[in-house]
Amino acid sequence: MEPVKVGLLGLGTVGGGTVEVLTSNAAEIARRAGRGIEIAFAAAREYRPESINGLDRIGRIGDDAFAVVEDPEIEIVIELIGGYSPARELVLKAIENGKHVVTANKALIAKHGNEIFAAARERGVVVGFEAAVAGGIPIIKALREGLAANHIEWIAGIINGTGNFILTEMRDKGRDFADVLAEAQALGYAEADPTFDVEGIDAAHKLTIMGSLAFGIPLQFERCFTEGISKIGAMDVVYAAELGYRIKHLGIARRSETGIELRVHPTLVPERRLLANVDGVMNAVLVKGDAVGPTLYYGAGAGALPTASAVVADLVDVVRSLTTDPNNRVPHLGFQPDALADTPVLRIEEVETAYYLRIFALDQPGVMARIASILGEQGISIEAIKQKEPGEGETYVTMVMLTHRVLEGRMNEAIARIEALDSVQEPVMRIRMETLSG
Amino acid sequence: MEPVKVGLLGLGTVGGGTVEVLTSNAAEIARRAGRGIEIAFAAAREYRPESINGLDRIGRIGDDAFAVVEDPEIEIVIELIGGYSPARELVLKAIENGKHVVTANKALIAKHGNEIFAAARERGVVVGFEAAVAGGIPIIKALREGLAANHIEWIAGIINGTGNFILTEMRDKGRDFADVLAEAQALGYAEADPTFDVEGIDAAHKLTIMGSLAFGIPLQFERCFTEGISKIGAMDVVYAAELGYRIKHLGIARRSETGIELRVHPTLVPERRLLANVDGVMNAVLVKGDAVGPTLYYGAGAGALPTASAVVADLVDVVRSLTTDPNNRVPHLGFQPDALADTPVLRIEEVETAYYLRIFALDQPGVMARIASILGEQGISIEAIKQKEPGEGETYVTMVMLTHRVLEGRMNEAIARIEALDSVQEPVMRIRMETLSG
Repeated sequence: MEPVKVGLLGLGTVGGGTVEVLTSNAAEIARRAGRGIEIAFAAAREYRPESINGLDRIGRIGDDAFAVVEDPEIEIVIELIGGYSPARELVLKAIENGKHVVTANKALIAKHGNEIFAAARERGVVVGFEAAVAGGIPIIKALREGLAANHIEWIAGIINGTGNFILTEMRDKGRDFADVLAEAQALGYAEADPTFDVEGIDAAHKLTIMGSLAFGIPLQFERCFTEGISKIGAMDVVYAAELGYRIKHLGIARRSETGIELRVHPTLVPERRLLANVDGVMNAVLVKGDAVGPTLYYGAGAGALPTASAVVADLVDVVRSLTTDPNNRVPHLGFQPDALADTPVLRIEEVETAYYLRIFALDQPGVMARIASILGEQGISIEAIKQKEPGEGETYVTMVMLTHRVLEGRMNEAIARIEALDSVQEPVMRIRMETLSG
Repeated sequence: MEPVKVGLLGLGTVGGGTVEVLTSNAAEIARRAGRGIEIAFAAAREYRPESINGLDRIGRIGDDAFAVVEDPEIEIVIELIGGYSPARELVLKAIENGKHVVTANKALIAKHGNEIFAAARERGVVVGFEAAVAGGIPIIKALREGLAANHIEWIAGIINGTGNFILTEMRDKGRDFADVLAEAQALGYAEADPTFDVEGIDAAHKLTIMGSLAFGIPLQFERCFTEGISKIGAMDVVYAAELGYRIKHLGIARRSETGIELRVHPTLVPERRLLANVDGVMNAVLVKGDAVGPTLYYGAGAGALPTASAVVADLVDVVRSLTTDPNNRVPHLGFQPDALADTPVLRIEEVETAYYLRIFALDQPGVMARIASILGEQGISIEAIKQKEPGEGETYVTMVMLTHRVLEGRMNEAIARIEALDSVQEPVMRIRMETLSG
C-alpha cells in the first residue's frame, strides 16, 4: 500500500522532533499503522537544517504554509507553528480542503477548538491534539477513551514543566523564585518572557482542554481561573514542608454540586501523594473517576521527541481511521457533539478549598485572637496553626495556618478584614490546599 | 439509534461491577459512545442477586453461557468467567458467530491469545482485553496506541496488587511474609490458594501480554520467567532500605541486544523512583520509549469497579468501531498480524541484571576474601558491601552486597561456588536489582 502523504507546518523544536521520530522509527511505525507515513511537503519560514535528523526524507520544503494546506496530494496536515494566527486560518483551510489535522497547539485548541471541531465534523475529518496536553503522556486518549466508562469527578495535573522545575529547585535547595527562574532561563527550560509558563497561562490552555474531555462541556478558556507561582516565597516552601506538604503548580478541574471548577494555581499537596513527588520538568495528571478511582499518568510534558511521540501517535490513529465512517469516530471532545453539557464553569469565588495562610503581624497580645475571631466569623475553621518566634528585638511575627474547606468568597472577605487590621502589615499570603484523596 | 445488545458471561465480582457501571453511568456512556449499551442476556451458574446493582436492567439471565454466544440478537459478548476452559470455547464460538468479544481474562489471552486473535481477524471482529492487565489503568491502550510512535525499550510494572500489598506491609511494619499473607487472606486481598498471586503467575500472564504489545511478538506465556515473593525475608526488606532501595515484585519486559526478556521477580528499586513509592494494592506500569522517555501509569489493578471501568471502555471502543473497515482497526497486538517479529525470548540465564546478595557465613578470617575472589573470577564486580556485626557469642555473620550488572548464568555459577564453601551454611539469597533509569 502507498505511504500516506503528510504535510508539515513548522520545522522548529517539535517539527524537527517529528521528522526525526518518523525517520528513525519508520519501520516500526509502519508495522503498527499498516502503512508508511511520508512527509511529502513541509513549510517553514526559518529552520536550522543541521539540527534536524531525517530532513532529507522530506519530499520538498517551502516557506508558504498555505501552499501545503492547498496541496491536493496531502491527506494529513501537521500544524506545529503554534500561536493563534495564522495557525487558525491554516487549520481551518486544511479542514475545508478535506484534510485531517494533527496539532500540538494548546493555545489554538483551548481558544478556537469549538470552531475547529465543528468545521472538522462538518467536513468529516479528524483533528488530533494529543500533543497539546502534557507532551508525550497519552492523557487525551486516556480521558477520551480509556476512562470512557467513568463519571469523572476531578483532575489535578502538573502540566507545566518550567513551573515544576522552579518549584522543585526552590524546595530542594531553599532558593528564591527569581533566582531559580534566572537559572531555568539560562538552561533553556524557561523562555526569555516566562509569563506563559510561570503565570499559568500555558497550564490553563491545557486544563481547559482536559476539563472539556472530562466533563463533556465546550471549551471555555476565558473562564479558567489562573494564578502563577511568582509570589511563592522560599519561606512558604519551608513552612509547607514543616506541615507535611509540598507546593505544586496544579491545574484542577472539578465537578462540584454547583458547577465545574477550572483553576490553575499554586497548591499545597500532602507530601506522600505521588503527585507531590513528581519533580523537575516532568508532568503528571491525576484523574479521579467514579468507577476506576484515582489513576495517574506521568511523563515528559515537553521537549522535541516526547511531543513528537504524541504527534506521531495521532498520525497513526488518523491513518488507521482513514477508511472509517466519520460519524462513528471518537468524538473530538470524547462526548458526541450534540451531547455536550451546559454545566456552568464557576467563578473562583464560588470554589471551595482549604487554605494555607501566612500572616505577618505585630508581636503583641491579642493579635492572634483578633485574626482567629475574624476567621471564625467568616465560618472558617483552623486545622493547624504555627507561630514563628520573632528574632531578638523584632517586633513582628509570622503566623502560618491551615484552614478547613471554605468558599473562596468567604476567604476573600476574611483576608480583607485581616489586612485591614493595624497590626497586620503585609498582604496575607494565601495558597490553596488540596488533599487529592476525595 | 437502538442500543447495542450485549451478552454477559459471568456475574461474579467483575460481572457485577460491569452491570453496576453500565447502569449508574448509562447516560454519560451513551453521550460518549453515541448509542446506549444494553445487557440483553447474561449467563451465570451462581451469583448473588442482592450484591449486584442494576440486575433488573438485564434483559434475561440464564445459566447456559453457550446460549448467550449462540443468541443471534447479541452483537458483543463480555467474557468474565475467567480460566482457560470453557472460556476459550465460549470466546471462539462467539467469534465464529461474528460477535465482538470483550474479556478481562489474562490467563486466556496470555495462553490462547494468538489463536483467538487469528480467529477474530479471520471473522472480522474485535477482541478487547484492556481489563486483562492492570485493572482500570488504560495501559493496553497506552502501549498499543498512545505510544505507537516509539521503539519501546522496556517495561517494568507492579501488576499484582496482592503481592504489592504484602511487600508494602512487610516494609511499613517490619512483618514477615507469612504473617502478612495471612492478614491479606483475611482481608480478602489474597485467595485461599495464594499461588497465582504471590508466585507471580498472575503477573506473568499480564507481562506476557504487555511484552507482545511493546515489541510486536506473538504471545509466549510459557517463556516468561517467574519467581515469587515468598522467600523474601523481613531482614531483606530492612537491608534493602539501609542501602536506599525498596523491594517490589516487578514484571519486566526488556529488549536487549540478543533478544527479549520477559521476567517476573522480586526486584530492588531505588527508593526515590515513583515506582518504589507505589504502595498497597495499587498497580503501576513504567514504560520506556525511545522518543517519549519514561512514562508511568498508576491506578487500581483489581476490584469490581476498576476492572469494570476497563471492560466498559473496551465496550465503548467496540461500539464506536462497529461500522469500521475490519482491516483498518487497531490490530490486537498493536502491530499488524503479518508484521510480528520472531525475536527470541531469552532464557533467564541470558539476562543481565545487577544483584542484591545476602550470604550467611562463618565469622572467621578469610571468608569474605574467598567470596570476593569467587565473584571476581566470575567477572562480577561489587558495588557495595555491608557486613552485619554478629551478636555476642554468635559465630555466623550476615553479608549483604550489591553487584554490578552481570549475566544471570555467571551469577548462578558464582552462587553455586559460594554455597559449596564450608564456611557458608545457608543458601545464598539473591534478589535482582534494577535502576529503572536507562
